[in-house]
Amino acid sequence: MRAELRTVPRVQRKALGIEDPPTLRTWQEPVINRWAFRHLDEIVPTATISHVPLSERRVSVGLGAAAAVPELRARLEATFTDAFVVERGGEVVAEHYAPGFGPEDRHLLMSVSKSLCGIVIGTLIDEGLLDTGARTDRYLPELGESAFGDATVRQLLDMTAAVDYSEEYTDPDSEVQTHDRAAGWRPRRAGDPADVYEFLTTLGRSRPHGERFQYCSAVTDVLAWLAERVTDERYADVLSERLWSRLGCEREARIGVDLGGFSFANGGVACTARDLVRVGRLMLDGGTALGERVVSEAWVAETLAGADPALSAEARKREVFPNFSYRNQWWSVGDERGSVHAVGIHGQYIWLDPATDTVIVKFSSEPLPVSADSSRANARIFADVIAAVAR
Amino acid sequence: MRAELRTVPRVQRKALGIEDPPTLRTWQEPVINRWAFRHLDEIVPTATISHVPLSERRVSVGLGAAAAVPELRARLEATFTDAFVVERGGEVVAEHYAPGFGPEDRHLLMSVSKSLCGIVIGTLIDEGLLDTGARTDRYLPELGESAFGDATVRQLLDMTAAVDYSEEYTDPDSEVQTHDRAAGWRPRRAGDPADVYEFLTTLGRSRPHGERFQYCSAVTDVLAWLAERVTDERYADVLSERLWSRLGCEREARIGVDLGGFSFANGGVACTARDLVRVGRLMLDGGTALGERVVSEAWVAETLAGADPALSAEARKREVFPNFSYRNQWWSVGDERGSVHAVGIHGQYIWLDPATDTVIVKFSSEPLPVSADSSRANARIFADVIAAVAR
Repeated sequence: MRAELRTVPRVQRKALGIEDPPTLRTWQEPVINRWAFRHLDEIVPTATISHVPLSERRVSVGLGAAAAVPELRARLEATFTDAFVVERGGEVVAEHYAPGFGPEDRHLLMSVSKSLCGIVIGTLIDEGLLDTGARTDRYLPELGESAFGDATVRQLLDMTAAVDYSEEYTDPDSEVQTHDRAAGWRPRRAGDPADVYEFLTTLGRSRPHGERFQYCSAVTDVLAWLAERVTDERYADVLSERLWSRLGCEREARIGVDLGGFSFANGGVACTARDLVRVGRLMLDGGTALGERVVSEAWVAETLAGADPALSAEARKREVFPNFSYRNQWWSVGDERGSVHAVGIHGQYIWLDPATDTVIVKFSSEPLPVSADSSRANARIFADVIAAVAR
Repeated sequence: MRAELRTVPRVQRKALGIEDPPTLRTWQEPVINRWAFRHLDEIVPTATISHVPLSERRVSVGLGAAAAVPELRARLEATFTDAFVVERGGEVVAEHYAPGFGPEDRHLLMSVSKSLCGIVIGTLIDEGLLDTGARTDRYLPELGESAFGDATVRQLLDMTAAVDYSEEYTDPDSEVQTHDRAAGWRPRRAGDPADVYEFLTTLGRSRPHGERFQYCSAVTDVLAWLAERVTDERYADVLSERLWSRLGCEREARIGVDLGGFSFANGGVACTARDLVRVGRLMLDGGTALGERVVSEAWVAETLAGADPALSAEARKREVFPNFSYRNQWWSVGDERGSVHAVGIHGQYIWLDPATDTVIVKFSSEPLPVSADSSRANARIFADVIAAVAR
């Protein structure tokens, strides 16, 4: 329904009769300006000019019953919290924001973005547009020579695909940093891939798929590319139409885009904490929102049930969650409560506690991308707050 | 009311104890990540993930009575129209969109942005925060050595300040292109100013202020900097609080920001056509919207009355509008109808026809930045459509 100028930019460029993507040098020139003037925010950094009157802007409900948790405010500050929202049974019951941040403000989700992509893929599987047993190159022949060509959709969803990819965030020679550079999130080096589409084609593998869990951000971007291919829409639009516009969200979300027009699905979504709570609520409500079905109950049940923890026996995350597993782009703690979460580096969370029907969203800006200490500190905060608000 | 992390980034950086602005190299590192994770869209290009359900998205009302204008659709296409909205007496009566663009989509306004800034400055003058007779360096001592230091606020508003600045958009050695490069809108060259704040300090003058009209984009950015100084807020927030959030706009607007955090006030706003219509309606309604006063009636009357056309005797625009003048960042045609407009390069317009209480917004992506032929073609379209819908 979005016409030619809103599909994948490579296609748009073809429609406009030009070969190269818009660059800082060319975007104001004809004929690419027909696309660029409609997408300023995709060309240059932009700030928000809110249309919401001051009198109608949301205010925090405060800590409420969670205030009974010893030292909670100090613990939130010690874990560099920007936003902390607790929702139980559909109602926001506790909320805390850092100075200068509030219910109307968007925050980067980092890899919490992956779990949103998981739900989108679930809707495509529900409709038969994707088959979990199919090989990736059935839909994306471009990836036939890459690590991903013979990985099944199921292996991508559960991160059991094998990829030669280091997820060491602070190592400049790691693939995750090349990935960032291709996406335009770090300064480019000579010879870097033009965009994430190209980057994905360069990745190989040196062992078989399906043997074990390997957390790899590139895998989620392949899922997003699959979503684009089978819908013939851009991932940002697929995410809007299949998830974001169906939850009663109050604000648009944003997503990083690279020079090739790829939406950075694995880590690039930014939204408000209260809107992200709605994603958690969807999961606890079995895939329905506003009385309508968004994704099948079976998909949600499968996701919340987790996978075989034996697949992740070698993973570093075992230090914190000894029985964890990864299913459909969500993390299952493997505890008796059935805790499941989405998590992003530097402390982003959706934490689901099915036992008490509670959703917690936490946005942080921790100094380190990953830290077992902070993961444990956050998990303790979640447990204590859940106990307090369930009383 | 916006706390420390939402004021001008230079101040933010001081509060965070760091000297340098966030760059692609540093933004994910502590402690700048506390700011950057809250402002992803100000760091990298981003795309919109709409929260509006498909069933609630606005649809075009069609051309209505304007369809009686001979060849209107062909004339809109020939002038590279992306959006065309006609509003009379508060009601949208005609609408046309190019394929792939619609009522929910934002478009770059280019210099129509200046006229929004003019209204914001009007509200600050109304409140006594700015004095039209005061010199610019009374508020911005940083500009004391520049062309702007001894220009009055009135001279800035009416573009009678003198500045050594070439507004030749297609000349790579013009100041307007250096301005674009400082703003991050064109590829940087060695020795370019770090940001627009710095660029503005580099401009000189070689004749006195007040002699004649000189259209100069830098002047509007000085006005925006004045707005930041007297409110101690960022221009994007000032624009929201004093204008955008007071008109009943349906969508947030966006504005380009540079590495120093300067909001590109002179040309960087993007919004929907229907929301921009509300700015024109505010002017025709004498400064009120939703039953509340936004800017004084005197300010609006002064703006619509125009200035002395003798000041613009040498201006190129005389070819198209022989009697035009420029007042408070709006263009007065100087015709018997009292036509006033905001205009941006490549064909962006708010056209006001007080005689019939009509507002027209036109978004285009014309190949040339400025063309007398296209200005005339657009003015004829506006005249014909106004006559048709007023019948």
